[in-house]
Amino acid sequence: MTPDKDAFEARLRQIGAERYHDRHPFHHLLHSGGCTPEQVRAWVINRYYYQASIPMKDAAFMSRVEDPALRRAWRSRIEDHDGTDENEGGIQRWLRLADAVGLDRDYVASTEGVLPATKFAVDAYVRFVRDKTLLEAVASSLTELFAPKIHAQRIEGLLQNYEFADDSSLSYFKNRLKEAPKDVAFGLAWVLDHADTAEKQDAAANALIFKTNVLWSQLDALYSAYVEPGRIPPGAWQPGTFETRQKVAS
Amino acid sequence: MTPDKDAFEARLRQIGAERYHDRHPFHHLLHSGGCTPEQVRAWVINRYYYQASIPMKDAAFMSRVEDPALRRAWRSRIEDHDGTDENEGGIQRWLRLADAVGLDRDYVASTEGVLPATKFAVDAYVRFVRDKTLLEAVASSLTELFAPKIHAQRIEGLLQNYEFADDSSLSYFKNRLKEAPKDVAFGLAWVLDHADTAEKQDAAANALIFKTNVLWSQLDALYSAYVEPGRIPPGAWQPGTFETRQKVAS
Repeated sequence: MTPDKDAFEARLRQIGAERYHDRHPFHHLLHSGGCTPEQVRAWVINRYYYQASIPMKDAAFMSRVEDPALRRAWRSRIEDHDGTDENEGGIQRWLRLADAVGLDRDYVASTEGVLPATKFAVDAYVRFVRDKTLLEAVASSLTELFAPKIHAQRIEGLLQNYEFADDSSLSYFKNRLKEAPKDVAFGLAWVLDHADTAEKQDAAANALIFKTNVLWSQLDALYSAYVEPGRIPPGAWQPGTFETRQKVAS
Repeated sequence: MTPDKDAFEARLRQIGAERYHDRHPFHHLLHSGGCTPEQVRAWVINRYYYQASIPMKDAAFMSRVEDPALRRAWRSRIEDHDGTDENEGGIQRWLRLADAVGLDRDYVASTEGVLPATKFAVDAYVRFVRDKTLLEAVASSLTELFAPKIHAQRIEGLLQNYEFADDSSLSYFKNRLKEAPKDVAFGLAWVLDHADTAEKQDAAANALIFKTNVLWSQLDALYSAYVEPGRIPPGAWQPGTFETRQKVAS
């Protein structure tokens, strides 16, 4: 690795240190057990939209890749989310979490009560990957560099603080702990190799910043609607609806 | 007009009554004089991104219209915003407002400090008009049905409550009072004529709901960042920067 690559990798990691959504107060609230059952449900409903969109994002990427080897390396991401004969996949695992927190899984899967701001942010991500250079598309996936830490914190925090949390309901996060490192090792090496000019390094860094904005905006919208000031926009999920039981012990 | 058209027009107007952003607390704060100078500036910075994107939205629409008469009818919208030899246009008028509230107009025009959530929402609107049917594209413009009322309230409220407000700084809104009714009369007639099945009426109504979400989300993001809880996302405008003077009397 050339010194230049080292410096560039450090620059990318610094973006995560400053902007990744592990720094957002909603996650502190969630992991510390400070969320009400309704706030946990709102998070599950909204984050589902992100989970469900990721394989479309990856398909959009692959639709533009001419190199079969790169497509083959990328394909496992879609399998990880959509499932295979042997593996139910991340989307189904997320719906198990929806069951566990007392939500109607068909309602969650319909994405009807998702905050418009969540949809705008996630759709922007899918389109970014569809429209920008391959380098920017791969670079935007590098938030996974910072994901294992937050998933580990989340598993620990949820298990400690919420009765719904167990191996089954948290299987999404446990699986991501295994899947994300392999994906991101590939993605990081690819970006470090292909960002071979200062201009391309800037573009890749900006793509990663864009992606941190996509994640941060989702939590801001969730916080604004369900925590403080707690104003739910017209049409979004109202606590007390589409719940399979009244209370989730917390 | 058939009874069916009447009922459909009433349905569209009801969407505005329930979802248009004149109901958002940020506007009450703004029009009543309750905004700090910093909050007014944040609004001017963020709303600029919307203003500046509207002609791109209209060009995206015209790029898909095969009928010269419809393109000709639509073209004045671009002129209204981008200007002509005789008319400076809405974007320049908005920058006059930026001057008046004590902001560096080049900074505002750069759109650098705009909230990511604002960009996601506005970009979603431009893409909606680019990707959806012409009927849905025209229907999404019908929030203008509800705009004259809010512009009149705004002119009155700003003039009463803020020292920066005068004929020059508010010229954007005064001009929209003249321009919007002609645009919306055309758009409404076109939608009522072309939504000639129940399915098309549903699509047009959903397009209008989508657009109200675009507007509402912008104010939610603004409120969250600069009013309550007042947490500014990474990279967005920080009060005290890019200001041409310390204080705006209010």
